Amino acid sequence: MPYSKILANIEKHVSLAEGERHFLLEQLELKEVQKKAYILQAGDTCRYFNFVNEGAFRAYYLSKEGKESTVMFAVSDWWITDMHCFINEQPAMLHIQAIEHSSIVRLSKEKLNLLFEELPKFERFFRVIMQNAYTREQLRVLENLSLTAEERYHNFISKYPRIVAHVTQKQIATYLGITPEFLSTIRAGKT
Amino acid sequence: MPYSKILANIEKHVSLAEGERHFLLEQLELKEVQKKAYILQAGDTCRYFNFVNEGAFRAYYLSKEGKESTVMFAVSDWWITDMHCFINEQPAMLHIQAIEHSSIVRLSKEKLNLLFEELPKFERFFRVIMQNAYTREQLRVLENLSLTAEERYHNFISKYPRIVAHVTQKQIATYLGITPEFLSTIRAGKT
Repeated sequence: MPYSKILANIEKHVSLAEGERHFLLEQLELKEVQKKAYILQAGDTCRYFNFVNEGAFRAYYLSKEGKESTVMFAVSDWWITDMHCFINEQPAMLHIQAIEHSSIVRLSKEKLNLLFEELPKFERFFRVIMQNAYTREQLRVLENLSLTAEERYHNFISKYPRIVAHVTQKQIATYLGITPEFLSTIRAGKT
Repeated sequence: MPYSKILANIEKHVSLAEGERHFLLEQLELKEVQKKAYILQAGDTCRYFNFVNEGAFRAYYLSKEGKESTVMFAVSDWWITDMHCFINEQPAMLHIQAIEHSSIVRLSKEKLNLLFEELPKFERFFRVIMQNAYTREQLRVLENLSLTAEERYHNFISKYPRIVAHVTQKQIATYLGITPEFLSTIRAGKT
C-alpha cells in the first residue's frame, strides 16, 4: 500500500485513531518523479511539503555565477521542501531535483493547515520534525564553524550512510562547501 | 508585571483563555543573571528552555584548542537553549553566557512536557518557533555556503540590528567564522 511508509513515519511520533488515519490519507497525494526531474525550481511558489517514499532528492542553491551549494539531501523516509519559502510564501530560493527515479507523497500548504485545524495532534508531529530539523541544522552550523573539512566529511559519511549510497562525491563536496578536488584529496587520506 | 513579555511572545502565535494563561504562568520561573554569568556550561545537563526577558546572551562552542564559535545570540524577546542537548537529554555542547546584566524566564523540560500534555495549543506555539528557528538556521547554512564573509557580515548587521547593539565585533567574528582582524578589514571597506 503506497502510503504505508508515510503513515509509519508519522506514527513514530503520534498515534492515530482509524478515523484520523483515514482523514490524513485523504489529504495526501502520491507522485512519481523521473530521475533528474525537479519538484521545485528557484522562483517558483513552494506549495508542497514532500515525503520521500522511494528514491533520493537534492535541494541546492544555484548562484548567479553558476555555483551549486547543496542545502540538503533526502532519501526514503525523509521530508524535503524549501522550508523558508513554504512557510513564508515567498518564491523558492532552492532547486529540488530527483537524483534517481523516485516517488513522493506530497502535502500542500492548504492541506497541512487543514490537518493542523482538524487534527490537532498533527501539530505535535510537525513540532517534532521541526525541532529535529532545527537541531540538525544547528549542529551543521556548529560543525562548519569548528571542524575541518576532513572532519566534516568523515562525520557526514558516518552519520548519513543511506545518503552516501545515493549521491555522487561531487554532490557531497557541494554540501560540505569544498571543491571536488579537495574532497578527492581528503578521501585519498592526504590531508 | 514580569511575565508580560513572554506572554506577548506566546500570544503572537496562539490565543490563550484566562485559565490557560494562569496555568502557563504557574510553570514559569523568572531569574536574574549577572553580566558574564553562565546559564549553561558544556558538559552540564541542559534542563531549560530560556526566554530572554531583558539583556543579551551568547551561545558558543569552545574547542579543545580554545577556539570559540558563536552558534547564536539572543536578545530580549528571543528564546535560547542548546536545543540538541535539551531535546535529546545529552550533556550540553554549548556555553550560554550573559553578555550583560539580564533576566530570563525559564521553562524546564518537565514543565514544557506538562504544557504539551495539558495545553495542546502549546504544541502549535512550539511548532511555530521551531519552524522559524529551522528556517533561520537553514538560511544561515545557505549563506555560509554561497556568500562571501563580507556579504554575510552585511546581511547580519542588516538582519539583526538589535543584536549588533549588544555584542562586540569580536563576538560577531566568531559567529561568522572569521578572524577579528579580517572583520576589521571588511568594516574598513578594504575587501
